[in-house]
Amino acid sequence: MRLPLQVLNLGLALIALAAGNVLAQQISPDPLLSWNDGATKQAIVEFVAKVTDEEGTDFVPPAERIATFDNDGTLWAEQPFYFQLAFAVDRIKALAPQHPEWQTREPFASILKGDIDSALAGGDHALVEIVTATHAGMTTTEFEQIVKGWLATAKHPKGLPYTEMIYQPMLELLNYLRANGFKTYIVSGGGVEFMRVFSEKAYGIPPEQVVGSMGKLQFEPRDNQPVLVKLPEVDFVDDKDGKPIGIQKFIGRRPIASFGNSDGDLQMLQWTTSGDGARFALIVHHTDPQREWAYDRNSRIGRLDKALDEATAKGWTVVDMKTDWKTIFPTEDATP
Amino acid sequence: MRLPLQVLNLGLALIALAAGNVLAQQISPDPLLSWNDGATKQAIVEFVAKVTDEEGTDFVPPAERIATFDNDGTLWAEQPFYFQLAFAVDRIKALAPQHPEWQTREPFASILKGDIDSALAGGDHALVEIVTATHAGMTTTEFEQIVKGWLATAKHPKGLPYTEMIYQPMLELLNYLRANGFKTYIVSGGGVEFMRVFSEKAYGIPPEQVVGSMGKLQFEPRDNQPVLVKLPEVDFVDDKDGKPIGIQKFIGRRPIASFGNSDGDLQMLQWTTSGDGARFALIVHHTDPQREWAYDRNSRIGRLDKALDEATAKGWTVVDMKTDWKTIFPTEDATP
Repeated sequence: MRLPLQVLNLGLALIALAAGNVLAQQISPDPLLSWNDGATKQAIVEFVAKVTDEEGTDFVPPAERIATFDNDGTLWAEQPFYFQLAFAVDRIKALAPQHPEWQTREPFASILKGDIDSALAGGDHALVEIVTATHAGMTTTEFEQIVKGWLATAKHPKGLPYTEMIYQPMLELLNYLRANGFKTYIVSGGGVEFMRVFSEKAYGIPPEQVVGSMGKLQFEPRDNQPVLVKLPEVDFVDDKDGKPIGIQKFIGRRPIASFGNSDGDLQMLQWTTSGDGARFALIVHHTDPQREWAYDRNSRIGRLDKALDEATAKGWTVVDMKTDWKTIFPTEDATP
Repeated sequence: MRLPLQVLNLGLALIALAAGNVLAQQISPDPLLSWNDGATKQAIVEFVAKVTDEEGTDFVPPAERIATFDNDGTLWAEQPFYFQLAFAVDRIKALAPQHPEWQTREPFASILKGDIDSALAGGDHALVEIVTATHAGMTTTEFEQIVKGWLATAKHPKGLPYTEMIYQPMLELLNYLRANGFKTYIVSGGGVEFMRVFSEKAYGIPPEQVVGSMGKLQFEPRDNQPVLVKLPEVDFVDDKDGKPIGIQKFIGRRPIASFGNSDGDLQMLQWTTSGDGARFALIVHHTDPQREWAYDRNSRIGRLDKALDEATAKGWTVVDMKTDWKTIFPTEDATP
């Protein structure tokens, strides 16, 4: 066979490339660099090795390597309260001049006084009031712009932008899974339209791989252009039982690996681990009051009680944040 | 630089591979072989060339190349009535021995007599009765098995399995778009759990890229294993206004190209084409009574009226099935 010159050149270029790859493999850094060596890290690596080994009995074809991640407390922090609530609080303050009635009406009055705990004392009813006042009545495009603007300027009490309060070890885990053919999803109680604004940039998870809670939408013409208006009505709550339901509705395949941090994730972990073949469930246990926060059974936010018991009973992997994570946030300044 | 022998061997293998690729490109067949040359085929090719040209002003990054396809009448046939209704009818016949009351109760009595038109005369109420009797009361896994069994044995009146009543030109179009970096989705009024059973095998569209109508689900333990039970309650109807809403809920990005065949697709086409930048809308017009069916403005199924007017007014691409499609079904026997 005679080859044209450009093919030979291409061949030589590919030889060089292949040599580079060999070199890169020899010196390739640990993909889970921020995870301390130990049982947790080992469990992750062993699971991934098992399901990607084409010769093994636990092999899972790439199309079925679905991994689902809770967001609040699993991919980013959730203290002193859910970041989406911080967004809502800032939004209520911004909108207050147009709503003089809020000065005397709960839960708004307490929020405007800076007393979030009293505002939340109203329970689910208060939460729905807060969410609908801040997440409805605009188009989906307008809402996206509002969230973008907030993320660009708002700061967590620790002084960092919210999108820097994400967990470096979990970013590495997401990349590691994707490098091994997994499709990574967020399955969170958070609002889907809120998370989709930053999920791709923060986690490398595109909007279509984000499952979350949502309000009802209405399609209508506006200035001869169709828009989708966010209505003040809850459509779907992606928490607890809602997580496996959301997975079935939006993904239509049962995950082989799931990652959470609270009782709100228990049903997702149960659903994932009760499928056939190799399965993996991991719980992030917040045990580091110095670098992050320490909370579990009695926490108002991210309560981890039944899920921790079930993790023990069923041998799920539990991250001890303090000992398992070398680094917590991507920027060192994030540590308290 | 000295290279180990295996790298040199790899290089030689890659040269051979590259030569093969050059050869393959030289003799590569038309990716839209079943489309006759003409304005329709040209419009498709020009749009794809435009959005994939990195130097051009209409370039769209691969991540945003979302294309959404209606299913019934767009990817597979829908006459003499929706195939999912054929499934429901067969299912009612199979379940009839356990439901003696159906012999005298509409819409079941008519269905059991083989009179579908009379059964459907009951309108939406009759349809809901039919759907809930056949699509609820079992787990999602059980339903999947039932649909699989039906697809493996049921035959369309034309004598073919339903999954062979798909359109060869549309299969080529799906492949062509995917080869050009598009992510292809089904957005259909059909039941999402029905379509997900065959979408990957029939169209190369994985379950997680299927958006459709759905019933409510319930998570519950059964024999110590969690299951998802299909409840007799409509959750979401993915038709008309529901299509752009479904796109926003499930995909979270506006498509740049949409494909439909009836007024039920109009809002999806409006939503797609009203975004910024290059956009593409295509309507499959059923004009071939010999090889397929001919119907539009007054059809009981797949009514194409307002959407055809808007296509004309806005210059959307309309497939004239009779003249634009060289082949209709993958197997020649499918032609009447």
